[in-house]
Amino acid sequence: AIISQLDVQVLPIQVSHFAAEKCRDILLNESINALKAMEEQGLNQMIISSPPAIFYLTGKWFSPGERMIALYLNTKGNHKLVVNKLFPIYEDLGVDLVWYADIEDPIKILCTIVDKESTLGVDKNWPAHFLIKLMDNKGAKAFVNSSPIIDRLRMIKDEEEIQLMKESSRINDSVMLKLWSNLKEGYSEKYYANLLAELYEEEGASGFSFPPIVATSPNGADPHHGTGKDKVKNGDSIVLDIGGVYKNYCSDMTRTVFIGKEPSKEHAHVYNIVKSANEKAISIIKEGVKFSDIDKAARNLITDAGYGQYFTHRTGHSIGIEIHDFGNVSSVNDDEVKAGMIFSVEPGIYLKDNIGVRVEDLVLVTKDGCEVLNSVTKEITVL
Amino acid sequence: AIISQLDVQVLPIQVSHFAAEKCRDILLNESINALKAMEEQGLNQMIISSPPAIFYLTGKWFSPGERMIALYLNTKGNHKLVVNKLFPIYEDLGVDLVWYADIEDPIKILCTIVDKESTLGVDKNWPAHFLIKLMDNKGAKAFVNSSPIIDRLRMIKDEEEIQLMKESSRINDSVMLKLWSNLKEGYSEKYYANLLAELYEEEGASGFSFPPIVATSPNGADPHHGTGKDKVKNGDSIVLDIGGVYKNYCSDMTRTVFIGKEPSKEHAHVYNIVKSANEKAISIIKEGVKFSDIDKAARNLITDAGYGQYFTHRTGHSIGIEIHDFGNVSSVNDDEVKAGMIFSVEPGIYLKDNIGVRVEDLVLVTKDGCEVLNSVTKEITVL
Repeated sequence: AIISQLDVQVLPIQVSHFAAEKCRDILLNESINALKAMEEQGLNQMIISSPPAIFYLTGKWFSPGERMIALYLNTKGNHKLVVNKLFPIYEDLGVDLVWYADIEDPIKILCTIVDKESTLGVDKNWPAHFLIKLMDNKGAKAFVNSSPIIDRLRMIKDEEEIQLMKESSRINDSVMLKLWSNLKEGYSEKYYANLLAELYEEEGASGFSFPPIVATSPNGADPHHGTGKDKVKNGDSIVLDIGGVYKNYCSDMTRTVFIGKEPSKEHAHVYNIVKSANEKAISIIKEGVKFSDIDKAARNLITDAGYGQYFTHRTGHSIGIEIHDFGNVSSVNDDEVKAGMIFSVEPGIYLKDNIGVRVEDLVLVTKDGCEVLNSVTKEITVL
Repeated sequence: AIISQLDVQVLPIQVSHFAAEKCRDILLNESINALKAMEEQGLNQMIISSPPAIFYLTGKWFSPGERMIALYLNTKGNHKLVVNKLFPIYEDLGVDLVWYADIEDPIKILCTIVDKESTLGVDKNWPAHFLIKLMDNKGAKAFVNSSPIIDRLRMIKDEEEIQLMKESSRINDSVMLKLWSNLKEGYSEKYYANLLAELYEEEGASGFSFPPIVATSPNGADPHHGTGKDKVKNGDSIVLDIGGVYKNYCSDMTRTVFIGKEPSKEHAHVYNIVKSANEKAISIIKEGVKFSDIDKAARNLITDAGYGQYFTHRTGHSIGIEIHDFGNVSSVNDDEVKAGMIFSVEPGIYLKDNIGVRVEDLVLVTKDGCEVLNSVTKEITVL
């Protein structure tokens, strides 16, 4: 593999790009909010280096790998993008470009841009060696993690993002139904994972938002099970946790279905508890409710049914440009949800060596309630 | 997708693990060298957080995603591994384990371990927010990037690593030949990429070491081309840049072959220049030669033939646990190669809208020369 190829981070998902002419508008719009939030926190400069955050602000996805990339924002203007010459930019990103070559030191260049007399916000994921070098060069007065500023903006989707998220989930619904029509005894989990890659492509997605989970019983009882060589058998239940990427926006849904015959009484009972927990949590969502209350709604229902100890993970996570945006639906997150937020609601019950059930939808918070982005049935389904 | 799944970094390659009982030996052996190197540099403590570096030192691969993991080494002993409870460890890693839960702050725990009065070496890739928090807590006297200590140890492979690298390349040779036997008009680049996934599995590899490049002419003239929908046609040349992972060790090889008919005079000429550049560079490799001299040997040959401007990348890269280990075969790397180093030699010529040719082998440096780890023919091959 050639060097310039290798330096690039290997992304499991392929990404498409917004139209070039939009980039400038995006930065102008989003940066206004970012700059306002910076001012509110008394921070006048920051650098953003995570590819999803740079995409959010510029409309362009970079995969710089180990090479430094830094979008520098300053509340007084003078925004810059410091980027290696290996990554050509043909669009107007609404920001001055500062190029460097492999034989140059990008930190020295950053030092000429950053205001040394002020605190600098840095990206949570900036590799330590860049930060240490910038500190050694006394690049700023102090350094803070400023990612929460952008992360919190990203939690609230705008109209265009909402449309993309809806389309991404519409594709996911369609892929789930096509997958169902192919499920039958004799084929392996891995076979279906490969099939899913084709189905997302067929439906216009650019790839997976995460490696799909196709877990036939009893594998479904391990929430971490991915896909393996085990074959689907009549009488199995299968956990299908799948998602794709559409124009850089992620989908994510889980259904648990039964193959060849009706579930046993116990399995149907467990299934319906999980389904009710999913529905109960969704029913209380509206602007102003706490994330922790949504978690509690699902968890209490499962606990009251006697299965609390088998619901071993949090109820959900924010989603958008990343499969895991900032903000969890968990017992320790007392933030209030706001209109425009999109997150998953995915309670589950995992009975070792017996059955695993998870039912997951994405929801969009509105002023008065929420909109469920997935339409695939949650009733007991036998295929 | 469930949360604990999502927090885990999505790795494109699957990794296998050394036998558990070996872990302790690995840490003891490798840490002795690491501690020696630390002492030579006057550093008495450091933390290692990159999964490949932790694997190198402990024999265990972690995929902690956004959760903090830190292997703390101290020249006086008292090594610790600080790790989230979500990642169970059944092996004796030869180091004390310090567990934390999601609701605990791992940096506060690190503060109780690190010697505040000394400089702390940190991993080059440690996310900035951890480092900033440790600094805010005055976790150490000063902070330096100590990754080069481990990176330089990793460049020299020991006997066991050499055997694994040889086996990994043997598998790669075998996969290349099987791929050749399937190449014919009418099938797409992507078809062959999918086939490669099956071939590596068949041969006992755990996955790709990087996304394969299958670039049929003229796509091969773009060294960044991956795989697309273009179909192979008789008369095409194809760049095949492929590699797998065997017991966590990477292979990487490129061959350029011709389909259905003999290459034109021009294409054969270009091909033979690249092949000669590969062979010339390999012929000068032995302990003590500079990386830059190896680059120069290949580059001069191509330049003298009039194609210098079309050889647009460095000549090679180190390889081992990562497809891109520390250390490039480039004009600006004047380090001397040592016995036990393994790197790629991969000159190329890229003529836009015409043809791309790259020929790549892995070589193991010895006292008196080098051993080429690939055996697939480099003669002009028409399939």
